[in-house]
Amino acid sequence: MNDPRVADLLEFVRIPSVSAQSVHAVDMERCADWLVSKLKQIGLNAHKESTSGNSIVIGKTQRNASKKTVLIYGHYDVQPPEPLELWTTPPFDPQIRDGRIYGRGASDNKGQILAHILGVGEALAEGPLPVNVIFLIEGEEEVGSGHLAEFLEKHRADLACDAIAISDTGMAADGHPTLSYALRGIAAMEVRVFGPSHDLHSGIYGGAVANPATAAARLIASLHDAQGRVAIEGFYDDVQPMQHWEREAAAESPLSDEAIAAQAGVTELWGEAGYSSVERIGARPTAEINGIGGGYQGEGTKTVLPAEAFFKVTFRLVANQNPDAILKMARCHFEKHKPPGVQLDMVDGHGGEPFFLDPKGAQGMAACRALEAVFGKKPALTREGGSIPILADFQKILGHPALLLALASPDCRAHSPDESFPVENFLTGIRLNKALLKELAL
Amino acid sequence: MNDPRVADLLEFVRIPSVSAQSVHAVDMERCADWLVSKLKQIGLNAHKESTSGNSIVIGKTQRNASKKTVLIYGHYDVQPPEPLELWTTPPFDPQIRDGRIYGRGASDNKGQILAHILGVGEALAEGPLPVNVIFLIEGEEEVGSGHLAEFLEKHRADLACDAIAISDTGMAADGHPTLSYALRGIAAMEVRVFGPSHDLHSGIYGGAVANPATAAARLIASLHDAQGRVAIEGFYDDVQPMQHWEREAAAESPLSDEAIAAQAGVTELWGEAGYSSVERIGARPTAEINGIGGGYQGEGTKTVLPAEAFFKVTFRLVANQNPDAILKMARCHFEKHKPPGVQLDMVDGHGGEPFFLDPKGAQGMAACRALEAVFGKKPALTREGGSIPILADFQKILGHPALLLALASPDCRAHSPDESFPVENFLTGIRLNKALLKELAL
Repeated sequence: MNDPRVADLLEFVRIPSVSAQSVHAVDMERCADWLVSKLKQIGLNAHKESTSGNSIVIGKTQRNASKKTVLIYGHYDVQPPEPLELWTTPPFDPQIRDGRIYGRGASDNKGQILAHILGVGEALAEGPLPVNVIFLIEGEEEVGSGHLAEFLEKHRADLACDAIAISDTGMAADGHPTLSYALRGIAAMEVRVFGPSHDLHSGIYGGAVANPATAAARLIASLHDAQGRVAIEGFYDDVQPMQHWEREAAAESPLSDEAIAAQAGVTELWGEAGYSSVERIGARPTAEINGIGGGYQGEGTKTVLPAEAFFKVTFRLVANQNPDAILKMARCHFEKHKPPGVQLDMVDGHGGEPFFLDPKGAQGMAACRALEAVFGKKPALTREGGSIPILADFQKILGHPALLLALASPDCRAHSPDESFPVENFLTGIRLNKALLKELAL
Repeated sequence: MNDPRVADLLEFVRIPSVSAQSVHAVDMERCADWLVSKLKQIGLNAHKESTSGNSIVIGKTQRNASKKTVLIYGHYDVQPPEPLELWTTPPFDPQIRDGRIYGRGASDNKGQILAHILGVGEALAEGPLPVNVIFLIEGEEEVGSGHLAEFLEKHRADLACDAIAISDTGMAADGHPTLSYALRGIAAMEVRVFGPSHDLHSGIYGGAVANPATAAARLIASLHDAQGRVAIEGFYDDVQPMQHWEREAAAESPLSDEAIAAQAGVTELWGEAGYSSVERIGARPTAEINGIGGGYQGEGTKTVLPAEAFFKVTFRLVANQNPDAILKMARCHFEKHKPPGVQLDMVDGHGGEPFFLDPKGAQGMAACRALEAVFGKKPALTREGGSIPILADFQKILGHPALLLALASPDCRAHSPDESFPVENFLTGIRLNKALLKELAL
């Protein structure tokens, strides 16, 4: 493939910008420099901004006060490539096979952000842009975006914009245009259940001393009713009900139950009564046990009554639930359902707010028009089940929700060995970006 | 202390007869030889019998067909002494402090069995015994008595007897004469709960795929009702109800709730409604979770929906429950309560039958008279919560239940560092044995 745009992407992927591994600190800076030079090459003013962590790359078109401004966010850091032995070809020596570029970061997020950059470049080559553009490309997304909120606060005025576009999500189906208009928030908690001061002989004490493992299990069992609904009092109070068009969009989702079951490796899906699988994942909050432990876990039997047990729970939240309020309700619930004879120690973990953008609003409609124009079919409107807590920072600090336009195919294996990005999606992404800027200018 | 009987015990304890550690194989034989020589010294015919494991020591008085025969069982192997640093004085260099002999095996079971041996010796020195005596002292009690049943079968005729006495249990309170007339049986099971083929992202799948950790918790929670009763159908069907005298004996137990709570390190006891703590431990069956695990157990949060979870459960059983029948009921229960979307794999573990001897029968009354004669007060009649599965073998193969006469004080720390045996109990045990043989002759 002699397309210089593909050659650009191969060069970008070749830089091992692994933010989690300090051995790659030099590569991180090299990658930021590469981006600055690429942004300058297409005609933007660009520079690195240092943070207490990795540099943030900023690129801007000449500002024209009469035009709207679109901020495009992406990240140049990638996940660690390990385990290396599971890669068909080396993660940082990208190869093209069957129309896909294989390499760490090809789809997450180098292919996607470079499509935006090259789209702006092509548009600029054709004449003045319909909008001002600001690129904000960070190097810590894969390690929690620890310095991004501070940066947004500090540069709030410089980053003032009318819309925000992010391509870091997945298509509902391969080649299917997709606007993700909602993501779930998250609230984490660990509950430790304490009983006797030490593991007891279950013969000598069993029956007269409350068992912390049994108590932990009863607390977990109290979290859901028989219909799969979360049984915490008030849990659903703030949930924004699905509107008619949302249920229609979910029903039209190209993501089938069969596909979800096959990906998960289960023979049967299961969840809250009254909702489809796509709705359960995107539009309904959950309480999931991520880990549980207590007592003897080795081979065979050890007849102890354990001194303690614990479980880790995360709540995935939907608009307009608040993580702090949910953790407070969960504490009340566990205190109320605490079986006799044990003590609880509850430790709150991290939280992140849910995200919701009305795709029937002006910006959502603009994004949909751009997607339909480029792909030739109506985009799927999806609510994703995962969480991107930084979206709340964009909304709060810059004052706009983000438009999440997916370019990664569902089988791109982001974060896994043999990550890839279809060349087709890359080239489509370049066209999409041009269309999007035009539509957002209206 | 110049008492040659105490010197004998110190010599016995000095032999590191740890059956679990192969490095002590030579010490095991040396210990068996020491016992044979001791039994001969008091005037018995004695020898070692080899098994595929450690030798069994047999000692017999001259058989007089007109007299009843009492078999006295004990063991000469001891628990590993580790952790050594927690011993005040070395475990195999026994010391006397404050009237107690400190050393591994002092109370479990060397002090107790030697008291019986020396009791027979003293009685023989005074004249012919009122009964024939057979000593059976094994060397594998601490590692599961793996060769004892086979030995009993093979020597059934040689071991024919009219009563069996065992001193390997604990006194209800220090210095309080105690006859343990029941022990609980046991039945173990491990339940593995399987869901997706691999740990899933709890955002991408949470809500649509059943969570094995939650399912395991719901199964555990289904095991008990709110009153602490085991909720398995048929679980209590075969339970022999407590008789009036049993509840009276339990009410008179010198073991207080305060003492149980202090030993367990809890501020509050808890258990099945309608029974006291002593009754819950001795006379009521239980379902205890000994271990539970699944998903992420490390520091912080990992947002997975785990592929599997498991729990280990043991049922402690009382007369007349049957371990196999209980495991079968438990399987049915778990299958019936299995939440949707998961699969179960249930693996039965070991089982042991409950033991019950009516202390109001002839042998029980004889034992009580002996205890009262020596201690000067009525013995406590106790049901112990632990399990000694070999008791069922004695009953089945030799045709008699065992008389469990306790000589170890509750604070003797069997199996723990600083194990000890009060010299007083040792000397009382010698007298008790003489009284017991006299009473059993009637």
